[in-house]
Amino acid sequence: MKTVVYPGSFDPVTLGHLDVIERASAVFGHVVVTVMINSTKTPMFTPEERVALLKEATGHLDNVTIDFHKGLLTDYLRERNLNILVKGLRVISDFEAEFQMASVNRKLLANLETVFIMTKTEYMYLSSSIVKEVAQYGGDISNFVTQGVQKAIERKVGGL
Amino acid sequence: MKTVVYPGSFDPVTLGHLDVIERASAVFGHVVVTVMINSTKTPMFTPEERVALLKEATGHLDNVTIDFHKGLLTDYLRERNLNILVKGLRVISDFEAEFQMASVNRKLLANLETVFIMTKTEYMYLSSSIVKEVAQYGGDISNFVTQGVQKAIERKVGGL
Amino acid sequence: MKTVVYPGSFDPVTLGHLDVIERASAVFGHVVVTVMINSTKTPMFTPEERVALLKEATGHLDNVTIDFHKGLLTDYLRERNLNILVKGLRVISDFEAEFQMASVNRKLLANLETVFIMTKTEYMYLSSSIVKEVAQYGGDISNFVTQGVQKAIERKVGGL
Amino acid sequence: MKTVVYPGSFDPVTLGHLDVIERASAVFGHVVVTVMINSTKTPMFTPEERVALLKEATGHLDNVTIDFHKGLLTDYLRERNLNILVKGLRVISDFEAEFQMASVNRKLLANLETVFIMTKTEYMYLSSSIVKEVAQYGGDISNFVTQGVQKAIERKVGGL
Amino acid sequence: MKTVVYPGSFDPVTLGHLDVIERASAVFGHVVVTVMINSTKTPMFTPEERVALLKEATGHLDNVTIDFHKGLLTDYLRERNLNILVKGLRVISDFEAEFQMASVNRKLLANLETVFIMTKTEYMYLSSSIVKEVAQYGGDISNFVTQGVQKAIERKVGGL
Amino acid sequence: MKTVVYPGSFDPVTLGHLDVIERASAVFGHVVVTVMINSTKTPMFTPEERVALLKEATGHLDNVTIDFHKGLLTDYLRERNLNILVKGLRVISDFEAEFQMASVNRKLLANLETVFIMTKTEYMYLSSSIVKEVAQYGGDISNFVTQGVQKAIERKVGGL
Repeated sequence: MKTVVYPGSFDPVTLGHLDVIERASAVFGHVVVTVMINSTKTPMFTPEERVALLKEATGHLDNVTIDFHKGLLTDYLRERNLNILVKGLRVISDFEAEFQMASVNRKLLANLETVFIMTKTEYMYLSSSIVKEVAQYGGDISNFVTQGVQKAIERKVGGL
Repeated sequence: MKTVVYPGSFDPVTLGHLDVIERASAVFGHVVVTVMINSTKTPMFTPEERVALLKEATGHLDNVTIDFHKGLLTDYLRERNLNILVKGLRVISDFEAEFQMASVNRKLLANLETVFIMTKTEYMYLSSSIVKEVAQYGGDISNFVTQGVQKAIERKVGGL
Repeated sequence: MKTVVYPGSFDPVTLGHLDVIERASAVFGHVVVTVMINSTKTPMFTPEERVALLKEATGHLDNVTIDFHKGLLTDYLRERNLNILVKGLRVISDFEAEFQMASVNRKLLANLETVFIMTKTEYMYLSSSIVKEVAQYGGDISNFVTQGVQKAIERKVGGL
Repeated sequence: MKTVVYPGSFDPVTLGHLDVIERASAVFGHVVVTVMINSTKTPMFTPEERVALLKEATGHLDNVTIDFHKGLLTDYLRERNLNILVKGLRVISDFEAEFQMASVNRKLLANLETVFIMTKTEYMYLSSSIVKEVAQYGGDISNFVTQGVQKAIERKVGGL
Repeated sequence: MKTVVYPGSFDPVTLGHLDVIERASAVFGHVVVTVMINSTKTPMFTPEERVALLKEATGHLDNVTIDFHKGLLTDYLRERNLNILVKGLRVISDFEAEFQMASVNRKLLANLETVFIMTKTEYMYLSSSIVKEVAQYGGDISNFVTQGVQKAIERKVGGL
Repeated sequence: MKTVVYPGSFDPVTLGHLDVIERASAVFGHVVVTVMINSTKTPMFTPEERVALLKEATGHLDNVTIDFHKGLLTDYLRERNLNILVKGLRVISDFEAEFQMASVNRKLLANLETVFIMTKTEYMYLSSSIVKEVAQYGGDISNFVTQGVQKAIERKVGGL
């Protein structure tokens, strides 16, 4: 059974991400969801918090584990002897950015395969940034994230 | 007669925005142009200045009023009992960003309708940012904004 | 109250078209849905059948009437003294084709306005051709068209 | 180990298709390449010829089998108790057409998953139609198809 | 001074094509406009008529000549020892189709260069097909083609 | 022989840029590669360093010279009596941004022509930012830049 890696910043995980994780979990043997730590962006949640929210949101999926990594994704894969990435595809701009990354990553790790999974049309235009923006103005985000994530965001926003 | 809302940052209003406002004014009963105040961006003009420039630029249109709002657009609409948004459509990237907003907004305000108006092809690639960038290097912006806006920009740029 | 025209081949009307009609009916005073007769394509339904299916599907909407036209759309508008078109926007390729038509139409009818309405994401990828293709292979089309249209298609396909 | 289906007209198989098949064969347990027979198009090769060319081209891949089907793809999957499709992604227009099919197919087969695999950039703009067009004018197609397919096309074109 | 080739079906030449020819004529030493004869499409004008209309429309440009070719474009270039193509770029779908052709052509002629020239935004959505469609319904095409071409189209359409 | 200008930030030059420069050098009489200095971005290399890296990378091309400019590109062209820009075209988002610039620039300099050259598909998704990001995490960038640029980046990154 193949193990695949689903990388992202997950700051925080949305119902769109969860939809991709559930589909990947049905298609592949084992799914590792890896929180990528990017030193240049200022996230809302620490890596530890993002991992915890992902664990809570994916608790019902036996073949999904959560991990995190700081550095190049291709180094992460090489160290673990993994070579299949899963990415969610939403819109045209995603498509181009993902192609760019996949094509650069193939130059860095020769046997890399990137497999794209289509999000439910309902979640097609959802992103962590939009959710955080709505929350910052006090909007209702219950259609976009799990209850656990909603509470976590409200604590962050309330504490500002 | 229906009242529609045309939201944006309008920092400052360009001839492209004005083209959308004039078309919306011909199609709908009443058009409210609403300056959205976004706390994260650093604008060139204060909300009050942006409202004043819009008032001057739309003075010839009887059924257009100018307003401003800080917070969620859907809250603004709910409070005023309005539910029709007008947006200008220029290019593919607009199209996707607008679809994302429209689809998120529908989750926040169930009866929301977003109506897109096509800009004149001449203004298709015009944006406030491009105009400000050209002005900052001393370029001629008279083809992109009204005379009033041109003077206002030149005062800002000269004063730097 | 403004009267708008929603033109198309409607061969036959889908739930996606109906979604646009309902939204236009909520936004504008009066909506004329006009079946455009194109001599070069071989349709599944005659213009009369297409009009009848549209009448049945829009019976619940007071301010919607159904019409048909053979010839240039801009001539149709000029003769009736109308100048606002409504079009549904689904995907990028639509977007370009619609821009092309809108921009050519403006050259043919100076005061023409084209207003785009976003389809529900659920219907975003729906088209009359897809529905007919699925039906031709005996697939279930009840999620794509009204019951009346489904029966009409099944009669056509069965009668082949 | 999961079995996936890679459907297409394969009229005939190109090096781009082969690239997708090889990648799918590395990622999944078993790949069924299914020649879809579409009664409306006039193909260059009969379904039997297309199957034979695919068998020859994929002979080196243990976990790949070739099949054909006339009718709805979702019926094919339902009868064989399969629910994972593999599609190659090349360009933006593919992306939209594939999304349309995937989203219609999900309405016809609830648990359907569509997984997209990125073609090598070198094959990104390759299609069976382009290859046949080049061959029809006597151009060299050795960079686009296997030797076996090249000979088969040349026989067809020479025999015209 | 470099000689470049601007290939197309030109059935017939539009003001958009003419805009590209004029710009190419200003940028390059010599421009050969080549009518490509495609045996599968049914054109409105014969190759001879298309050449004649192009000659009339480009009479004011000293460094432009008109030619025609049946067969592969890369064979045409090889025989004449030419290797620079000029193409007009209008919209996204053009962009993809042109990239596909350019990338296939490079495989057929190693030193081939394709240079894209942006059409005036006014002509961005213009095509020979649209012009013929408008003319067939008796619409006014004087904004889309030269007077000579307009008369030629009207003779063809009147004679049907 | 025409002189063309290829403007960019070149922070630093990649193999994709070099591919465009070599193609432009084969198509035009003289190519000026101009480093545009943008006061708002924080570059990795000073303008002088970027010019030096470009000079080293283009040393084998007789008809290429390197220059730099702070201010509006159209002012640069006007002062030197030049009016042809060369731009590399990679992906859809490039396409739109380039059209926007070209269309704004034409308003600022009436006789401006922008000529687009297609990058090798291999370099289609390459950008200076991606290269810098990979280098910052210690990834191997030898497939993306010349040896000289690689050493220069490694000195910068090592010195952080």
